[in-house]
Amino acid sequence: MVITRKVEFSASHVCRNPRLTEEENRKLFGGEANPHGHGHNYVVEVSVAGEPDAVTGMVMDLKELKEILTRRIVEPYDHRFLNYEVPPFDRVTPTAENIARDIWARLDAELRGAGRKLRSVRVYETPDLFVDYEGEQPCSV
Amino acid sequence: MVITRKVEFSASHVCRNPRLTEEENRKLFGGEANPHGHGHNYVVEVSVAGEPDAVTGMVMDLKELKEILTRRIVEPYDHRFLNYEVPPFDRVTPTAENIARDIWARLDAELRGAGRKLRSVRVYETPDLFVDYEGEQPCSV
Amino acid sequence: MVITRKVEFSASHVCRNPRLTEEENRKLFGGEANPHGHGHNYVVEVSVAGEPDAVTGMVMDLKELKEILTRRIVEPYDHRFLNYEVPPFDRVTPTAENIARDIWARLDAELRGAGRKLRSVRVYETPDLFVDYEGEQPCSV
Amino acid sequence: MVITRKVEFSASHVCRNPRLTEEENRKLFGGEANPHGHGHNYVVEVSVAGEPDAVTGMVMDLKELKEILTRRIVEPYDHRFLNYEVPPFDRVTPTAENIARDIWARLDAELRGAGRKLRSVRVYETPDLFVDYEGEQPCSV
Amino acid sequence: MVITRKVEFSASHVCRNPRLTEEENRKLFGGEANPHGHGHNYVVEVSVAGEPDAVTGMVMDLKELKEILTRRIVEPYDHRFLNYEVPPFDRVTPTAENIARDIWARLDAELRGAGRKLRSVRVYETPDLFVDYEGEQPCSV
Amino acid sequence: MVITRKVEFSASHVCRNPRLTEEENRKLFGGEANPHGHGHNYVVEVSVAGEPDAVTGMVMDLKELKEILTRRIVEPYDHRFLNYEVPPFDRVTPTAENIARDIWARLDAELRGAGRKLRSVRVYETPDLFVDYEGEQPCSV
Repeated sequence: MVITRKVEFSASHVCRNPRLTEEENRKLFGGEANPHGHGHNYVVEVSVAGEPDAVTGMVMDLKELKEILTRRIVEPYDHRFLNYEVPPFDRVTPTAENIARDIWARLDAELRGAGRKLRSVRVYETPDLFVDYEGEQPCSV
Repeated sequence: MVITRKVEFSASHVCRNPRLTEEENRKLFGGEANPHGHGHNYVVEVSVAGEPDAVTGMVMDLKELKEILTRRIVEPYDHRFLNYEVPPFDRVTPTAENIARDIWARLDAELRGAGRKLRSVRVYETPDLFVDYEGEQPCSV
Repeated sequence: MVITRKVEFSASHVCRNPRLTEEENRKLFGGEANPHGHGHNYVVEVSVAGEPDAVTGMVMDLKELKEILTRRIVEPYDHRFLNYEVPPFDRVTPTAENIARDIWARLDAELRGAGRKLRSVRVYETPDLFVDYEGEQPCSV
Repeated sequence: MVITRKVEFSASHVCRNPRLTEEENRKLFGGEANPHGHGHNYVVEVSVAGEPDAVTGMVMDLKELKEILTRRIVEPYDHRFLNYEVPPFDRVTPTAENIARDIWARLDAELRGAGRKLRSVRVYETPDLFVDYEGEQPCSV
Repeated sequence: MVITRKVEFSASHVCRNPRLTEEENRKLFGGEANPHGHGHNYVVEVSVAGEPDAVTGMVMDLKELKEILTRRIVEPYDHRFLNYEVPPFDRVTPTAENIARDIWARLDAELRGAGRKLRSVRVYETPDLFVDYEGEQPCSV
Repeated sequence: MVITRKVEFSASHVCRNPRLTEEENRKLFGGEANPHGHGHNYVVEVSVAGEPDAVTGMVMDLKELKEILTRRIVEPYDHRFLNYEVPPFDRVTPTAENIARDIWARLDAELRGAGRKLRSVRVYETPDLFVDYEGEQPCSV
């Protein structure tokens, strides 16, 4: 059984690699490389797998899940310019892929509990573009 | 190939465990434990896996699928107070997790056919909270 | 200029008129008359008309608007059985129309301010059914 | 008859009034005042009123409407930090209200044609917050 | 008070004027003029204005409203090629504007009742393009 | 890591098997068999699995992904009557299942790259009905 909760935050980012030239950044990232940054209403779906508890009928306490997502994701990310204000994005390009990895790292230990664990993180950058991350290590395809 | 059809119903529920005290129920379920109940527009996505038929090009007859979902899910659940009117919720807490399990139990045999079977059930309690169930047995995580 | 903010609450209701017979209630309200009640994820859009302030560029302070909607609408309505727990629905049938009127009554004075006033209230009972109310008095059509 | 077309752009903004102190800005705008800025996926609905042409059956040529919205709204706004890169937001706070007014100013003359005119502009800052502007002049409420 | 109900149908159409040349049609309608036709999942919102009844608390009987929309709109339009199968679109170009007018004509008399009348018809051709019609007569803008 | 991009197209189809009688087609496909065809706003979600590149932080170049989906899916499908204008639907019934297979065939080789490959194709025929295809070969269930 997997339970998923959605949260949202509004943030700015700019997709540039400081080791590349302006021209290379424009070629790689297009308008996403505009140095002043731009923003999105990010939507995040966090999925936790486990067995419903015999007493509560729930995989985990929903109030606890909401509190964790608010404290670990919404509060540090919301209304921020990710590259300047939210490590590790001072040194890691805040693509949707890397945001999903960072959210995984922020939640993995905290959501691990008796009979449950973090299953996946989905990050919508826009309604038409999203990534899914399941904590997998780099591997060949 | 997996085909998914969405249906909706409006129902009330209350999340309480009768073996617990009022205080324990409030602590576990928060406002969900309010004894008068409250309600949701539930959205259910039912997914059937199989091979498209060589003649029809379809995993299963869509009219038949709709008829089964209407008869087995919408008619018994819609406009009901689940705890009082829809067994097994007289004795099982109607969390989204347990509703997904009950929908699985209602559909599993009926959707099993030549080259196809029920794959998963998703239940949205609100647009921001949903569970996925694939019929798995309890197991350690 | 009109600014609109959306809020949601989950509640139960039953549409019955106590002065009518069971049969008359069934005929008028269908499944909505089921005495145990049923529920919805109500979505409410509250619209305030006014001139943007010359200093802030806003029709009204958004934090104040959100605080008012939470205190006056979400807190009293959310996770409640409207007929039993939220006056005036002990004596007024909680149709979407009457819910919109009650929300108007709860907000009208509170949202009136320098150069602004409540413009309209929209209540979605389901994604496919909603009402709009602008505070008008009964009149012939 | 009114025809409406929706377009989207992603941009950053910061809501501050340079004539106010840091503390006053925080009090007025909350997190929106964070000087690094933050962003949104803005959704804009532009409505044109007119009579359908007797030959085409359309209020206006949809390809022309799309071209105007792309050229006048999406291209200058998309992937920009509004305060730094899109006049008049170097001197006008880019609240949703002021963005709607600026979009009106950019489109009004261009959409005026034989038997048609701009009717209204709706700007969604988030799915839960939007403004409607109909070009009205400041007036008492 | 205005109550709105949403219905959907899937249909094909082609936007051509038979009095124009192929080239003129292409210029006016673009891909919409492709003679084989193409299709949409149309969404229609029908709004009825009136006073809630003192006994029922409703502007009109919702079951009756749904029955009328099914019989007058969904049944004749759904799964049809509008130009070939649904008059008047054998002689009137089925633009969203003309579909809205036809829906108005189909519903106006039927929805007129004690203290209520049809207020407006909204037709979504796609999620990004819709028209609103209020039954107005042609007039100068 | 999986990245998904959504695209849309509007098209007509008719679900008939030419080797069956009119009555058999009606029984199998219902209104979908209407010979004049009908249409949908199809929504397609294409998912690509891979490792984010160490330099760009992206699974693949988003501009390249969009260009491929536009060229390979939107341009050939949009505003077309699939059975008459888009092979292989002159001989294969254009059910959602077969459309998903055709999209897979159009994209599979083109999206294969260093460390990435096509993961799945989702096709929404309506908001309530969709199929998922992962390129699997026919097999017993």
